[in-house]
Amino acid sequence: MEIQPTIGKSLIERLSKVVLFVFDIDGVLTDGGLWVSPAGEITRRVDIKDGYAIQYAIKKGYTVVLISGARGEGVGQRFARLGVKRIYTGVVNKLPVFEKLLNELHIPAWATLYMGDDIPDIPVLRKAGVAACPQDAAVEVQSICHYIATKKGGHGCAREVIELVLRLHGRWGNADSFLW
Amino acid sequence: MEIQPTIGKSLIERLSKVVLFVFDIDGVLTDGGLWVSPAGEITRRVDIKDGYAIQYAIKKGYTVVLISGARGEGVGQRFARLGVKRIYTGVVNKLPVFEKLLNELHIPAWATLYMGDDIPDIPVLRKAGVAACPQDAAVEVQSICHYIATKKGGHGCAREVIELVLRLHGRWGNADSFLW
Amino acid sequence: MEIQPTIGKSLIERLSKVVLFVFDIDGVLTDGGLWVSPAGEITRRVDIKDGYAIQYAIKKGYTVVLISGARGEGVGQRFARLGVKRIYTGVVNKLPVFEKLLNELHIPAWATLYMGDDIPDIPVLRKAGVAACPQDAAVEVQSICHYIATKKGGHGCAREVIELVLRLHGRWGNADSFLW
Amino acid sequence: MEIQPTIGKSLIERLSKVVLFVFDIDGVLTDGGLWVSPAGEITRRVDIKDGYAIQYAIKKGYTVVLISGARGEGVGQRFARLGVKRIYTGVVNKLPVFEKLLNELHIPAWATLYMGDDIPDIPVLRKAGVAACPQDAAVEVQSICHYIATKKGGHGCAREVIELVLRLHGRWGNADSFLW
Repeated sequence: MEIQPTIGKSLIERLSKVVLFVFDIDGVLTDGGLWVSPAGEITRRVDIKDGYAIQYAIKKGYTVVLISGARGEGVGQRFARLGVKRIYTGVVNKLPVFEKLLNELHIPAWATLYMGDDIPDIPVLRKAGVAACPQDAAVEVQSICHYIATKKGGHGCAREVIELVLRLHGRWGNADSFLW
Repeated sequence: MEIQPTIGKSLIERLSKVVLFVFDIDGVLTDGGLWVSPAGEITRRVDIKDGYAIQYAIKKGYTVVLISGARGEGVGQRFARLGVKRIYTGVVNKLPVFEKLLNELHIPAWATLYMGDDIPDIPVLRKAGVAACPQDAAVEVQSICHYIATKKGGHGCAREVIELVLRLHGRWGNADSFLW
Repeated sequence: MEIQPTIGKSLIERLSKVVLFVFDIDGVLTDGGLWVSPAGEITRRVDIKDGYAIQYAIKKGYTVVLISGARGEGVGQRFARLGVKRIYTGVVNKLPVFEKLLNELHIPAWATLYMGDDIPDIPVLRKAGVAACPQDAAVEVQSICHYIATKKGGHGCAREVIELVLRLHGRWGNADSFLW
Repeated sequence: MEIQPTIGKSLIERLSKVVLFVFDIDGVLTDGGLWVSPAGEITRRVDIKDGYAIQYAIKKGYTVVLISGARGEGVGQRFARLGVKRIYTGVVNKLPVFEKLLNELHIPAWATLYMGDDIPDIPVLRKAGVAACPQDAAVEVQSICHYIATKKGGHGCAREVIELVLRLHGRWGNADSFLW
């Protein structure tokens, strides 16, 4: 196996510039499962360790945004409680929403990490500074990502990329880490 | 290991003729789990990637039908929202329902793919052009299927067979794939 | 490795005499998970393939009984719909309930299979003709069972033992298997 | 591999002194999953075998306490029914709560086992006589624990440490074990 230092370096360079994290919900912050009640109400499973990393990143000054094709009111409330201020749900076409977001926040695309798991995420993944996906993303998504997480959707993949960036910035694991 | 090209060719021929997908619900579109509340209400877990593939197949002109032995009103609503028009629930004997469906739609059995996971699915599997099952189907079912998916029930097995057919037809992964 | 035909034969002899199946609920018909709502209501996950086997065994003339330390009203309703007539819940001490059951049904202990997964099941397991447990039972339970299933609790272990017995009796997989 | 008897002995010494078990909830007594309903209500999954061990330890005279950063009213009710008398929820900073607890109970830190899975648990883990964590704890936690369980959060890790201590004390598996 040939070692390719420039590729590794490039990923670190990309990660080191991130100030904005944008996450898809289903399959990224969840395991892709939709628990459907007899009344048709949908429950999703999110992960406590992802939640810790998201609130901590916000506490350290990063921006975290969610963009989802589905309507997940309950999940939106959960992440709002963790400090997420922008949660876009019911989005049919994600790219215009992403581009409008960057405009509003005055953040260039190269300073963003987007994590998605399926085909509708591809247009945004192509624009983001770091294109990331969970370990169990669709093959079409994996094939275009800079970083494929070692964790699956809903099982810590969001925390994994937040940790990567905050460690690069020397902001992971300080004294204030112990408080929720 | 001896290579048997005619068997492979035959499966591709079978798959290439499919215009109608018929899915069992429990154990195929779900992992076979029934979450039972104290009031006896039953919640099921379906998969977001299966959902994407089903709505996309319908958008591309395929017909998707569900036939289930159980009554799963909530799950029916979920798939109706994705564009599934025919959802038969509480079916004690699946074969007559399947045959009546083919009559009504004027679709021959050889143009259908049926995916089931357990013994009550066997009579329909014997009639369908492509008999398919999830990786964790009952052994009696696996032994008579043309295609055993690499994915388990509720974890992408429906998407796997939809992708197989649409790729054969050159209809998977076009520009309109990015929209939900 | 030395082959011990008498042990294998003995298990088959034991299994071949079974007319009554008694199952623990939590950890046997479920995966041991209790989903607790904010109001303290408990939801359990049961398996569709276990359900098929239980209703089919009853249809073929076997008796199926549930004995649980917990109160699981909803789960009781589910299995009552499948034809289970005796469901004992909230049982602190299982052995007297089991012995009273055998008296009432006039069935000898050697004609019963009991499947349990944890320490409170041990006294009944010591009495049953076939002591069986899921693959993930407590080690104390595994160590005294005649049969350790290849499947875990809530993932088909009940079906596995029902299938074993009905195959021995030539009653698994007949024409009436296709109907729910 | 060099055998290090003093380390093993030290762990046994530590375990043998435990009279108080303190558990984190999310990721320890649960698998870290939060099932979020459309109304934003959160359901958690706890394990029946952990529940058995907790009620049994209390029956044998041990004290069991829960400290959680989250608010999990339903889970609190569940463990209160098992005999847990002190359940602290919504705790931002765990160490002062732990220290106040020891003061009130007149139990020295060296007689306690604390099991936690994530960074906010670290200050308490550093004080406890036995610092323990589930197999899937954050690496920062694993690196400072005396004992890393072979079981994951929500899948028997609490039972594993209770069993370890009670076996050392000769109190696991007596006649009263068979009753819930």
